[in-house]
Amino acid sequence: MTGNILGERLTLISFGESHGRCIGMVLDGCPAGLSLSESDLQIELDRRKPGQSIITTQRKEEDKVEILSGIFNGYTTSAPICAIIWNRDSDSKPYEVIKNNPRPGHADYPSFIKNGGFADYRGSGRFSGRLTATMVMGGAIAQKLLKYSLGIETIAYTTQIGQISYNSLSYEEAKLNRYTNDVRCPNPEIAEKMKSIIIDARKSGDSLGGIVECISVGLPVGLGEPIFSSMESDLSKALFSIPSVKAIEFGSGFSGTKLKGSENNDEYTISEDNKIITKTNNSGGILGGLTNGMPLVVRIGFKPASSIAKKQKTVDLVSNSECDIVVPGRHDPCVVPRAIPVVESLVSFILADHAIRWGLIPPVLSDRKK
Amino acid sequence: MTGNILGERLTLISFGESHGRCIGMVLDGCPAGLSLSESDLQIELDRRKPGQSIITTQRKEEDKVEILSGIFNGYTTSAPICAIIWNRDSDSKPYEVIKNNPRPGHADYPSFIKNGGFADYRGSGRFSGRLTATMVMGGAIAQKLLKYSLGIETIAYTTQIGQISYNSLSYEEAKLNRYTNDVRCPNPEIAEKMKSIIIDARKSGDSLGGIVECISVGLPVGLGEPIFSSMESDLSKALFSIPSVKAIEFGSGFSGTKLKGSENNDEYTISEDNKIITKTNNSGGILGGLTNGMPLVVRIGFKPASSIAKKQKTVDLVSNSECDIVVPGRHDPCVVPRAIPVVESLVSFILADHAIRWGLIPPVLSDRKK
Amino acid sequence: MTGNILGERLTLISFGESHGRCIGMVLDGCPAGLSLSESDLQIELDRRKPGQSIITTQRKEEDKVEILSGIFNGYTTSAPICAIIWNRDSDSKPYEVIKNNPRPGHADYPSFIKNGGFADYRGSGRFSGRLTATMVMGGAIAQKLLKYSLGIETIAYTTQIGQISYNSLSYEEAKLNRYTNDVRCPNPEIAEKMKSIIIDARKSGDSLGGIVECISVGLPVGLGEPIFSSMESDLSKALFSIPSVKAIEFGSGFSGTKLKGSENNDEYTISEDNKIITKTNNSGGILGGLTNGMPLVVRIGFKPASSIAKKQKTVDLVSNSECDIVVPGRHDPCVVPRAIPVVESLVSFILADHAIRWGLIPPVLSDRKK
Amino acid sequence: MTGNILGERLTLISFGESHGRCIGMVLDGCPAGLSLSESDLQIELDRRKPGQSIITTQRKEEDKVEILSGIFNGYTTSAPICAIIWNRDSDSKPYEVIKNNPRPGHADYPSFIKNGGFADYRGSGRFSGRLTATMVMGGAIAQKLLKYSLGIETIAYTTQIGQISYNSLSYEEAKLNRYTNDVRCPNPEIAEKMKSIIIDARKSGDSLGGIVECISVGLPVGLGEPIFSSMESDLSKALFSIPSVKAIEFGSGFSGTKLKGSENNDEYTISEDNKIITKTNNSGGILGGLTNGMPLVVRIGFKPASSIAKKQKTVDLVSNSECDIVVPGRHDPCVVPRAIPVVESLVSFILADHAIRWGLIPPVLSDRKK
Repeated sequence: MTGNILGERLTLISFGESHGRCIGMVLDGCPAGLSLSESDLQIELDRRKPGQSIITTQRKEEDKVEILSGIFNGYTTSAPICAIIWNRDSDSKPYEVIKNNPRPGHADYPSFIKNGGFADYRGSGRFSGRLTATMVMGGAIAQKLLKYSLGIETIAYTTQIGQISYNSLSYEEAKLNRYTNDVRCPNPEIAEKMKSIIIDARKSGDSLGGIVECISVGLPVGLGEPIFSSMESDLSKALFSIPSVKAIEFGSGFSGTKLKGSENNDEYTISEDNKIITKTNNSGGILGGLTNGMPLVVRIGFKPASSIAKKQKTVDLVSNSECDIVVPGRHDPCVVPRAIPVVESLVSFILADHAIRWGLIPPVLSDRKK
Repeated sequence: MTGNILGERLTLISFGESHGRCIGMVLDGCPAGLSLSESDLQIELDRRKPGQSIITTQRKEEDKVEILSGIFNGYTTSAPICAIIWNRDSDSKPYEVIKNNPRPGHADYPSFIKNGGFADYRGSGRFSGRLTATMVMGGAIAQKLLKYSLGIETIAYTTQIGQISYNSLSYEEAKLNRYTNDVRCPNPEIAEKMKSIIIDARKSGDSLGGIVECISVGLPVGLGEPIFSSMESDLSKALFSIPSVKAIEFGSGFSGTKLKGSENNDEYTISEDNKIITKTNNSGGILGGLTNGMPLVVRIGFKPASSIAKKQKTVDLVSNSECDIVVPGRHDPCVVPRAIPVVESLVSFILADHAIRWGLIPPVLSDRKK
Repeated sequence: MTGNILGERLTLISFGESHGRCIGMVLDGCPAGLSLSESDLQIELDRRKPGQSIITTQRKEEDKVEILSGIFNGYTTSAPICAIIWNRDSDSKPYEVIKNNPRPGHADYPSFIKNGGFADYRGSGRFSGRLTATMVMGGAIAQKLLKYSLGIETIAYTTQIGQISYNSLSYEEAKLNRYTNDVRCPNPEIAEKMKSIIIDARKSGDSLGGIVECISVGLPVGLGEPIFSSMESDLSKALFSIPSVKAIEFGSGFSGTKLKGSENNDEYTISEDNKIITKTNNSGGILGGLTNGMPLVVRIGFKPASSIAKKQKTVDLVSNSECDIVVPGRHDPCVVPRAIPVVESLVSFILADHAIRWGLIPPVLSDRKK
Repeated sequence: MTGNILGERLTLISFGESHGRCIGMVLDGCPAGLSLSESDLQIELDRRKPGQSIITTQRKEEDKVEILSGIFNGYTTSAPICAIIWNRDSDSKPYEVIKNNPRPGHADYPSFIKNGGFADYRGSGRFSGRLTATMVMGGAIAQKLLKYSLGIETIAYTTQIGQISYNSLSYEEAKLNRYTNDVRCPNPEIAEKMKSIIIDARKSGDSLGGIVECISVGLPVGLGEPIFSSMESDLSKALFSIPSVKAIEFGSGFSGTKLKGSENNDEYTISEDNKIITKTNNSGGILGGLTNGMPLVVRIGFKPASSIAKKQKTVDLVSNSECDIVVPGRHDPCVVPRAIPVVESLVSFILADHAIRWGLIPPVLSDRKK
């Protein structure tokens, strides 16, 4: 399959460029009978759109979604769902400079070589963070599908910005608080500090990175496919598609590599409501690539945003000589807060795809009389 | 595609169980005209096989590979290459206990539920680390293919065991030293310490985890496919298929999330031999999912081996009650050293698949007269 | 992969419904550097659009294509190309009757059962012949790609309508004449007779079927992949996606099954320009699933159009009782003439996909300075 | 996916060469809990094996299958099932002549060009009809799976050999009689005539082709996926993988192209047991790419076997000059009778894959206590 397609039985095709006519996606394989309207997608897109707060880019994009196919009388039909957002606030002129002077940290240079100079470089083209909106469109549908059919919920939130981090993992706290502040951190006090250093970074013409944590609950035991479609394999494949993601860990992750087996193994016990659970969750809810019924926990590391106002060294591709560059455009000093719905979307998408593969979600969801 | 198949234009199918008749793989899509014999696979398998040293499992498996198809007159033919290893040293009796008492940290419980009790649980069946030999078979071919056709080389080595780590990244040093000691660490002194704590862990009935670092050099600029088949996406999908892997990072990875953009961005410059390079390599050689010509650097975190001699708490699946378990079988106190060739294999496999997808490797490799 | 996606390295995703907002497609995997504009697609779409002549449906659809992504400065960029046609002349009211009374010969009944009554039935929804326009959009690009990069040309034409057929196969004659008459038959006299019986069928409230023949020339030797992606396998998979297609044969096809091996085998010889050719072409240019350098010949059988004006017997899905139906809407008495560009499109698409898979078409097509 | 893999959620990988060490296959995606042993495969393989009667090749191959993986305690486990047949009766010496002198009708020439002379040409290598045994191995499992889980049965039989044909389609008659004679024709008298002309063809150093008809019963309404994975699309893709197949039609097929819509449409009615059925079955049980509950009928045209004893014209690839060839080896004068189980296998395989995709077959088939 080509690179712009994700999934097996639920498939997502992303298209569009940052400064082209539109960005959009096609979702194929969604079961029939799911109640769905543009507002289901819009609510998630609004959480991702630019210009939301002082710590995001001031570029204004309404990002209003239009569904072009696949819905009839308010329900999915099993036909492919195409949805698009028309691009509005594009100012491409500043990008002429990057045509031959690749920005450090961006895809400019390898894309130029790979595509022989034919790629649309305006606003980073296909490599723009803007394209994550197409992931959110598909993921919003997957999220609704999972909740409606299986009661599965997925939430993500910020646990680190730059050097400031927050570690108390609690699903309920995170669900309640994450959207109450601009950085989407469950703890309001830490959130304030995070916000403050993002503002500082912007002022100094710099940028910050951070970590997003994502938890899924309500999962059945056994979701996933050994060995090459393990839950970790397919989730990481999807999540590494997000620009700026450079690290992913499940459960105790890298810190677990320093523990002993007797410390890291999650012993089994019987819960009060007579279910088999583990006492700890160092596995992040995944054993042998299969969910074990515990919350699925994944942490995603975002590098600091590549677009910074500071002058940097680069090269001129025509003269093959060194030169300076000041990156044009209006940018996020830290992409982490706006990445929250993107992470939720892709995790939901992969879980939904696996649930369909496994036959957990029926091909028709409702017996509504027509 | 089903879960036991990896790749697009170079595909690997893994089959077999730890205590079944054999383990094996089929590699489809290998160009014709590559000189290949069983010894090309055997040399890599020997680096993975059990019983090599005091710090690995004492289970003896010769792991002698047999190629069943796809080679004619010493060359690949473009036909699928099937290779197998007959299982020899299997003692399945001790595994009766795990049928209903799942081992902490293992796939036993979710696999039991997923497969309705039909899965082959002997020696962990399909979930056994033994199956990584099938990855090595395919990867050894990919490695030779990459080196012959494009001059690409990939090496992996141990940088952390438990709490002991080694950070001086040097491709040349690692290439030279990694196989000179039992833990496959480039630094002999650190290696000695690592070995010592592995022996201690075994003595105390416990296990250790660690980190493997992998570097590929000689890569062209532009390898990879945006957006869902980014280089990070496809490498992580493959690497998370290795049992015990719970964390992956590229370049500066998680530590890079704490840097500022001006610190983490890799500025461009012109090398002495007039090539475009970056001054640093925090990107790990990947920008926008595409290789940028710098060394590709990925770090893989392995949890401590799940099989430990210490008594642990588990549950009985029949009576739904808590009980103790002492894990049977002969096991590695730390899987990291034996995972080195597995990591190299999967990274090579993905790079080769992408090189073929991109048209870099011709469908016929040699003009040898026949 | 899900059902609305076709191809491996060149992929086509079709979306939209007959009476929905639009129909469209995404083509992923097209190499960068191909000069492309909407007119390249429009010229082929115009050959397929309704209302062209007295023998097609009188429904008027301008079918004006808009490219939404993937083109920059007049060239392909390697990014996915999305193109759509907004639906205009839809009158859905007459279709209420088919909601519960399935039309004979149409997908109504199985679609109703499969999708639990949620499918968009207006104008046949996803099953409408209208969706073949999405195949033409993608195929038009493939056709241009093949001609530009490899000089491969594909033409289709009508060889049978009802009981009237025309057998003299000549690539040059067909190329010259097929679009000179309404039925797209290379022979003007036969074409006149075919047209006449189509008009008769319409008058009597009935419909006709027929056969389309398709020839590709300029093919290299060896295109195709054994065994499950043989040239016949992949072409037939694509062509059977066209509504009404019920039969496909290559070369001597069914009539060849009555010959002896000594009659049907194509003996080799050396051509005047010193090439290896076959004296006959009963294989239709394909041996062992691979092209052999001779013209590729495939014949596609279309059943008579299912929508007829005559009253027919059907059942009521609500009362589970027999009833009559008079099929609503404005329809083609024979779909064959309008299917010509659809056949050319899908054959071109598969050939282009295989050429890319095989590495015949480079990822960047032009060295135009940018 | 590469060319030697078929299917989406049930996948079949074929490997091996006619005169290599073995031929084999891996079937991935089979649900757990299906009772399965080698005899389930052997019974179908015996129907395909050479040397069965006077009208097949006199080459002797026991074709004894060995299952190498995926079965535990007599049941499938959901793990990939590998099965092989060791090659025994191979005499490769006579094939030296075809290395440079391609046999008319065979893949020799395009394979030589495609693979740069590296392909294993002995006994036709990968292009040998012998490889259809790997299709039968996988198909035998699919057949059992379909019958056990859904009650679906598929039978094929000969309806034409050379110019002699038999048309009375009756599932019951065919099921009863097809294996009572050497040509597998349901009618014993016609079978005798067919046998006689096959013997004549052999005597005259020639070969014959023919037609196989295949019927599946017990199908649910709605199996198949629009539009590119229509039932016709996926069945034809699989069936055209069989060497010698050059034509496929469903239902009334090519003869239906000559009918009027009012004649070819299948009107609906209510059956005596209150089911919705059609009065006729010109659609071959498929509407809009979906099964409609009627018997699925497909006819497959086989060209006369390419290997004939008569001297033929060919070329010498080294000297680029014309020459004669007498095809070496022991061959079937007509492959149709031995193709019957191959057709049944591939049709069953595709139906099973679609049933799994659609969620009709549960991932665990039995609740047998373990």
